[in-house]
This record gives sequence, C-alpha cells and structure tokens, in this order.
Amino acid sequence: MAKQAKRQYWIGFDLGGTKMFAVVYDADFQVIGKKRRKTKGNEGVGAGVERLVGTIDEALAEAKVERNEVAGIGIGCPGPLDLDKGILLDSPNLGWQNVPLKRKLQETFGCPAFVLNDVDSGIYGEYRFGAAKGAHCAVGVFPGTGIGGGCVYDGKLLRGKTGSVFEIGHMLAMPDGPLCGCGQMGCLEAVASRLAISAAATTAAYRGEAPHLLAEAGTDLGNVRSSTLAKAIAAGDVAIERIVRQASLLIGRVIGDVVNLMVPDIVVLGGGLVEAMPDLIVGEVLKAARERAMPVFRKSFAVRAAELGDDAAVLGAAAWAERQVNPSQA
Amino acid sequence: MAKQAKRQYWIGFDLGGTKMFAVVYDADFQVIGKKRRKTKGNEGVGAGVERLVGTIDEALAEAKVERNEVAGIGIGCPGPLDLDKGILLDSPNLGWQNVPLKRKLQETFGCPAFVLNDVDSGIYGEYRFGAAKGAHCAVGVFPGTGIGGGCVYDGKLLRGKTGSVFEIGHMLAMPDGPLCGCGQMGCLEAVASRLAISAAATTAAYRGEAPHLLAEAGTDLGNVRSSTLAKAIAAGDVAIERIVRQASLLIGRVIGDVVNLMVPDIVVLGGGLVEAMPDLIVGEVLKAARERAMPVFRKSFAVRAAELGDDAAVLGAAAWAERQVNPSQA
Repeated sequence: MAKQAKRQYWIGFDLGGTKMFAVVYDADFQVIGKKRRKTKGNEGVGAGVERLVGTIDEALAEAKVERNEVAGIGIGCPGPLDLDKGILLDSPNLGWQNVPLKRKLQETFGCPAFVLNDVDSGIYGEYRFGAAKGAHCAVGVFPGTGIGGGCVYDGKLLRGKTGSVFEIGHMLAMPDGPLCGCGQMGCLEAVASRLAISAAATTAAYRGEAPHLLAEAGTDLGNVRSSTLAKAIAAGDVAIERIVRQASLLIGRVIGDVVNLMVPDIVVLGGGLVEAMPDLIVGEVLKAARERAMPVFRKSFAVRAAELGDDAAVLGAAAWAERQVNPSQA
Repeated sequence: MAKQAKRQYWIGFDLGGTKMFAVVYDADFQVIGKKRRKTKGNEGVGAGVERLVGTIDEALAEAKVERNEVAGIGIGCPGPLDLDKGILLDSPNLGWQNVPLKRKLQETFGCPAFVLNDVDSGIYGEYRFGAAKGAHCAVGVFPGTGIGGGCVYDGKLLRGKTGSVFEIGHMLAMPDGPLCGCGQMGCLEAVASRLAISAAATTAAYRGEAPHLLAEAGTDLGNVRSSTLAKAIAAGDVAIERIVRQASLLIGRVIGDVVNLMVPDIVVLGGGLVEAMPDLIVGEVLKAARERAMPVFRKSFAVRAAELGDDAAVLGAAAWAERQVNPSQA
C-alpha cells in the first residue's frame, strides 16, 4: 500500500486580468515554489482554466511537492463571485462567465479550494503577515485603475450573502462629480484612482503645467504609470504633486466616514500608486481622515502603507484557505 | 436544603436620558413583568443605580420572579461605553461618568449582565424579533435628536475594540453643511435628524409657509414632535412635507453608500419620526438609496420601518444577554 501523503502545503493563486501567479507555501508560509504566466483570458474559459492548473503544477514542480500533498488552495479573483459555491460569475477583463473554479480545483487537486475577491485576499494577507497584523478591524484601500476596498473584522473577511463587499471606491466622494465606471456620478474612484490622477496629470501636462511629466510620458494616459508620476513630482512638477495630494484628500475624507462606521484600528493603503509615493499619500490620507472622523475616533486608527506588495494577494489567498481548513488556529 | 432555583428568565433594560424601562421575559421572550420610571440622572450615580436596581426589582415582583431565577440581564445605554468591562464611560444626558454597570448588576442579581449601546440593542431586537428577522446583515438607522446607527452582521452586533460603532449619523451628508453636535460640519444628523427637520419646519412656520404647524406648535422647536409634523403634512402643509422628503433623501443617499460597503439585506428605519410617517420616509429613503448604490447592489436590499417600537431596545438587550449566555442557540 502506498504511503499516505501528508497534506501540509498551501497554494495561493492570484488571477489577474493580464497575469496569473501561483505560489506554493510550506506550513510556516515560506515560499517554496512559484510560477507566473500570462492570463490570456481571450483564449476562453477552457484554455484559461487549463493554464491555471498548469501554472499551479509548475509551481508545485519547482517546490518538489506532489498534488496529494496540498492541504488547500485559495484563489483571489476579480469581480463578482459566488463565494460559497466558488464561482467566478462574470469578469469583463477576462471575458469569462460562470466558471466553477472551486469545484474544478477541488476535483483536480483533491483538496479544499476557496475562491475570494482579489482585493479581499490582499487585505487578508496584510492582516495575517503585513501592515495590519493583529488588528481587530483592518480596512484595506487599493487605488489602481479603480479603487478596491476590503475589511477584515474580528479575523474574518467581511462578505455579503453570496459575494464580496466593501466597495469603498464607489462611495460618494464628490456630489455631482464625474462619471464613474459603475455608471454612477462622483464615486471615489472616479476622482481619486490612479486612472483619475493620470487623467488629471496628462491634462496638466497638455496645458504645459507639468514639463517633466510631458517630457517623460507625453499626453497619452496609457504611458502614465505610478512611477512616472512619482518621478515627475521628484523632478519638480508641482501641479502633479497637487493632483496627488487632492486625490489623497478625497480618499482620506471617505476613509474618515468609514472610520465613523467601522472604527478600524488600521487602514492599509496598497497598490502601485501608494508604493511609488507612500509618505506623500499616507500623510495626506491620514490628515483628511482625521479631519472627517468624529472627534472621539480621531486618534483611534492608524493609516499605513501595505508591506507585502504583490505578494499580499497570493499570500492572503493561501492563508485564507488555511484558516478555513483549520479554523481552530484562529 | 433549599431547592436550587432554575435560572430561566431574562431581563431587558433601557436606560434613557429621561426614562428607564425594565422588562422581565420568560424563556420564549414573552413579557411577564415590566416597570417604567423617570431616570432622574441629576440625582447622581449612586441614586441612579439604586433606582435602576429598584426598577428591575419591581418588574420582577410584577412577574413573580425571584432574583435567583434570572439567567441574564442586558442593558441598553447611551454611549460611549466600555463593552467588555460593561462600564458607562460618559453620559452627558445623565451627567454620569465611569459607572461599572455590569459589575454592579452581576453582584446584585448574581447572574451575567451585558452592557450594550441603546441603538445597538434596538437593531438587535429588530433582528431577533422584528423587521430584520433572519438577515445576514441588518443595518438600523434611527433618526431622533441625533441619528443613531447599528449593524447586525452574521448574527452579531458590529463593535469596535472596546466600544460601539456604526455612527451613520456622523457620515458626511452635505460638504460645507451645517454644524453638527459632534463638532464637525455637514454630518447626516445635522441635516436630517428629527431635530434638524423640526428646525427647518419651525423656520418655514415662522415665514408663514406652514400655517397648520404654526397654529399647532408656534415657532418653538421644543413643541415640534414627530406627530406634530405628521399632522401638519396631513393637513396640507406642503413645505413640511418637502422638508421631510429632503431629509429622507439625504438619509437614503448615505444609506446607499453604506450599502456599497456592507451590502446589507435589510435596512430598518426606526424611531418616532419614522413611526409617525413610515410610508413617506421609507419610500423616499429607498428611492435615494437605490439611486446612490452601485447598480449591482441596487436590488440587493430592502428598506423597512421598524416593527417593535419602544420595545425593540429592551427586547434586544434581553435577547443579546441570552445569546451571550447561550451562544450555541445561534
């Protein structure tokens, strides 16, 4: 009789619009294998799920771990999900609909699998291993193309009846403000996401108010990365600094309202924009959040930059799977 | 040897600024005794706590229940509180500070006692027995002198590290809006509480735009009750109806943002103002909340008037005590 393998490894997976990323962790959450691939969502669901499984297998091969040694898989996915059934309902970025990821992974690897929102896996990673370790209530805010939000409360991710919640990017930041991708007007992400900042920055460049940005990136929105913005500010483009400060103020004001509701001990700001200029953004956000929070809550919370970068989502997904399989460890 | 009494009764207590209310419930949460008294906070903490104990004893006497038959006591108090230690930290209305209510009640009645925020006890009552029964996530909004908020999530009241949370009345409803009692500007309760509505209504009366209200209550804010407002609207004071609709719109807009965060299945509106004109207020709030919520969440929640009236807080406090003592019943 073959020896029963001990299931002691955890897999974290980050399914992004352009890249997928699999990491194999040992029982202490040390990385022992990883693999990145392009997602190629346009090749369809069948090919996509095969790539996903293949990427995990390659990470396992690097780790020298067999499929039957995996204790659980957590997979962070974009957009609306059925968390209990583990179905990716609809991802415009991937062009995928109704993909039963949980079932597929469980059948393939013979272990429990858990689907969660990618922003949620990011804040959960920071809660378990990063900037929000040990918080009673940790709020995560990730400004990127949109502004993602998530909340770990009392050791668990806040969730809705079936799906992910905490859409902080769609709270009202500016009455009668600009059109948001969700169809509403004046949402936070319509005025303070990296995309909104980039649009304001290229406008300033076009007007001749940001010579360094103009020299570096021209006026094409697609050329303006977080690092480009940071470089322009460092080089002396005052207009770009003011744009980033104003966006941070708006983010901070909305966070102040979230403080009034949830009274988090820690708010974690993450994503490439924050990584590119953590002091500037964290400082402005904290100031604005304190100004909006009730006086009694003003000193009750910290604002910190995320510590784990791109690893937060895979690590969080793996750790979430572990906590579901071993709830008694909490 | 005396027979050991079976501890099977629950006490709910509502400690208000003007009145205190004790109710004795049997194991099925049927009322078997109750007693109301004036609070008389100005007589000091010692006298106040004696009145509180005396009020419970009178309710017990009416119920023909001995102290040693009480299984647990829940007491809803105005904030801020230390929930774990069960201390009323500071109540400007009562003029009380640092009152160790939990310890005092436990010593006196020899059973577990639990201190909770009065708004929280109200929404918890509605969750267990009223308009929000069985909700995964229930948000309560109670417009009165201020606007109280609370949230039951997955069977438990949301709370902070030590105190109560969900201060929906202090979320930003109107940038650069009027001064709020908390010291900030433009908070929801500064523009949409019963008090704010009454102020706008008496202003309209003073200007001659609300003849029925003027005839009934004059221009003294202290004379304008919720029933007065409802009567003036019924009699044809169009200006008063517009004022109530506008306040409801602002409440609904903030609720729409809360929906984007928490994705509650049910939002319960309670308090005297809502009781006096439930259809008008619930209808406007639902409309405005749907307009502000993300399209994907628009149909995910109901807005309902509270069902239990003044009983919600005492019933909720008693039921919360029971759930803490018997968590396995959840």
